[in-house]
Amino acid sequence: MSQDQEKNSILLFEEAVDSQDANAIQSLAQEMHPADFEEIFPEFSLENQRFIIDTLPLKSSALILSNLDEDDVKTILKEKDPLFISKLINYLDSDDAADILLSFPVKTREEVIANIEDKEFAENIIDLLYYEEDCAGGLMAKEFITTNINWTVKECIEEIRRQAKRVEKVLTVYVVDDQGILQGRVSLKKIILSKDDVKIKDICIPNIHAVQTYDSDEDVADMMQKYDLEVVPVVNVQGKLMGRITIDDIVDVITENAEVDQQLMAGISENIEASDTIWMITRARLPWLIIGMAGGLLGAKFIGLFERDLAIIPAMAFFIPLITATGGNVGIQSSTIIVQTLASSGEFLGKKRKLFAKSFSVAIINGLAIAILVFLFNIAFSSFSMAAIVSISLFCVVILASTMGTLTPLVLNRFNINPALASGPFITTTNDLLGLAVYFLTARLLLGVGIG
Amino acid sequence: MSQDQEKNSILLFEEAVDSQDANAIQSLAQEMHPADFEEIFPEFSLENQRFIIDTLPLKSSALILSNLDEDDVKTILKEKDPLFISKLINYLDSDDAADILLSFPVKTREEVIANIEDKEFAENIIDLLYYEEDCAGGLMAKEFITTNINWTVKECIEEIRRQAKRVEKVLTVYVVDDQGILQGRVSLKKIILSKDDVKIKDICIPNIHAVQTYDSDEDVADMMQKYDLEVVPVVNVQGKLMGRITIDDIVDVITENAEVDQQLMAGISENIEASDTIWMITRARLPWLIIGMAGGLLGAKFIGLFERDLAIIPAMAFFIPLITATGGNVGIQSSTIIVQTLASSGEFLGKKRKLFAKSFSVAIINGLAIAILVFLFNIAFSSFSMAAIVSISLFCVVILASTMGTLTPLVLNRFNINPALASGPFITTTNDLLGLAVYFLTARLLLGVGIG
Repeated sequence: MSQDQEKNSILLFEEAVDSQDANAIQSLAQEMHPADFEEIFPEFSLENQRFIIDTLPLKSSALILSNLDEDDVKTILKEKDPLFISKLINYLDSDDAADILLSFPVKTREEVIANIEDKEFAENIIDLLYYEEDCAGGLMAKEFITTNINWTVKECIEEIRRQAKRVEKVLTVYVVDDQGILQGRVSLKKIILSKDDVKIKDICIPNIHAVQTYDSDEDVADMMQKYDLEVVPVVNVQGKLMGRITIDDIVDVITENAEVDQQLMAGISENIEASDTIWMITRARLPWLIIGMAGGLLGAKFIGLFERDLAIIPAMAFFIPLITATGGNVGIQSSTIIVQTLASSGEFLGKKRKLFAKSFSVAIINGLAIAILVFLFNIAFSSFSMAAIVSISLFCVVILASTMGTLTPLVLNRFNINPALASGPFITTTNDLLGLAVYFLTARLLLGVGIG
Repeated sequence: MSQDQEKNSILLFEEAVDSQDANAIQSLAQEMHPADFEEIFPEFSLENQRFIIDTLPLKSSALILSNLDEDDVKTILKEKDPLFISKLINYLDSDDAADILLSFPVKTREEVIANIEDKEFAENIIDLLYYEEDCAGGLMAKEFITTNINWTVKECIEEIRRQAKRVEKVLTVYVVDDQGILQGRVSLKKIILSKDDVKIKDICIPNIHAVQTYDSDEDVADMMQKYDLEVVPVVNVQGKLMGRITIDDIVDVITENAEVDQQLMAGISENIEASDTIWMITRARLPWLIIGMAGGLLGAKFIGLFERDLAIIPAMAFFIPLITATGGNVGIQSSTIIVQTLASSGEFLGKKRKLFAKSFSVAIINGLAIAILVFLFNIAFSSFSMAAIVSISLFCVVILASTMGTLTPLVLNRFNINPALASGPFITTTNDLLGLAVYFLTARLLLGVGIG
């Protein structure tokens, strides 16, 4: 389908939903990809969302729900009976089915599971409900093909045929021993090109990368990115094959972590979306605003110490925003570079001293550039002493802010706090206060005026 | 290999490189994954990097080089003869080989290509050199298996056998007609489970998603993410199959774009890394610092208009940092949410009015909260009129900064400018100036003092 056709279908779908036209929705469902519904689904009212779920074929509804937040799923499916839900999740892979079940209270979960006809599927879901969402166990699915290392290619093909309906996408075949311990994998290409009586043992690739059920989603993402894996097996502490994680789930983890970091850097304390409620957005934004406010009030008290100086030289006040803004900008630049380096390599493998030396050199160059430009500007409008105070302070502020911006994320990282936090209002507030201190103390030193 | 063993190997490798011990490097190469070398490679000096490339097996060296920046590859391979380079890239997929060749002048490129023994591989590289790096054509590789729609499964398996050596990872088999026009795909699972005489036509999945050679890397990333694709075929305007893009290349695109956006938001104008030169980092950081500086000087001129007011009430100066910091923080929060919404859905599908109403409500709540808190604090230390001026200004600043933060990225996006730019020093600087204007004008209105 071309992009224009896709856009057109989306418009038709929106119309059909707004007028609650079940026939039109059903016929559009035949030609559209479920991912297209998914994309626009959150835009509709709750009433229309429920109408869509009731009207679309069960499979499409299931796919849409599997991509929503827990809270939304809970609200939409609130009044549905367990039988309907069990039919719905039957169309999903075990990992998505488990995620949907997690939005229900334990009693409903058990009723739903009791209603699932495919007992193997039901057991797989029960297994998955056990794991936290943000670890490998919570990300993995049970849909994969295993073959015994002692089998032949023919037996392996029989196993693929047996599982074919349940496992839609076969990316690789895992090889286990009699105890279910992961031994390696066999590619489908190899199976196609090998004679029926070839032993799996002889075409198996041993020593493959695997993750532990308890590994964090970020560790799994790092590993899959580093080794360019489309799929990775998950094993338990005994080395027994428990599931597999595919790259599409990891792409979501990567995107979400990047968003969380960006929001932390912007001073938003919970992961929110534009579609969240006013209350949720306020709750996520207010804490950092209040911390910034506390910093501002502290700054006010500090400047208050210099009230008499300000009465003598009101021009001192003119450059307060220049000083604080420059400190803030430099601090954010420095911390962002460190945060990204930490995110891409996890830790600095040595070379820390070199990195500090470099960021110090950059700070000196930038500091000099800004200080000289401002001096040239000021000397045309203000007194020499005022111009000198501002430029000397600016230079010091750039050096200090750059040092703070480099050190803070490293310190936070050392204490296992997300270093992205350092690029937010935290560093801006600190740098504001540092900048004010430098500015007024420089003035005091150069002008020698007494405390008010 | 366990994580501890991996860390240990890395340490041993570093030691071997530092002492330029070729034997140790070669024996470690046998047990380590190339991705492990890749990760630490950029940490070494140029001399040691060249030593590694000369010492490691060609395949490992090729993989390492394929993951470096163009400039680095150029420097490392500077004095190598074209024959060596042609042997080196022979171990890579065509897309990575083409990327490495792009770091050389045209003459060297042609000499290298002339030295490649596999003529089909050479032709594939020539094809790929034609495309820009950031479009689908520049991302695709030529290593894929095609089958004619009129063939049988047996003929298809023969084709897989013929190509098996060249195409390491077979994810899917593409189906084309006699003119090479893409008709669909066949999964390897289906091929394994079908009898030899079954026609490809009968097991082919038609109407699959494909991208055009000229589609941007971001569009390809969006599509692969939306439809959970591990691999996507690339066609030209006639619909002819030209190549395929795998998800691992797209994960890199997603990560890189997120980094570029983060840097833009931090006021860094070029995509830099901590390992870049001092000069490059300075060049990327200085422009926004100067823009921030210009904003600060403009602010100084503006406050200068109120010099006489300040002489009468020096306390006016105390709250300047509070006003500017609050405006900055609110602006960044608002713009970040809009930038992320734009990034995840490309455009707002209707509902814009609802979004504005919501962000306005959040601004009113946050504005009131901050204003009241600050008022309670100030009334204890300052005059009633000063407390009123500060709190009224703060409330207006929160509303204004939130509006600016919401509108700016939308306007930039409309003009096809990366909206992430709006979350950087641009919005902070604008909000500083707006905040100062609101603050001093409120004071003028409430106190009725005359212009200085």
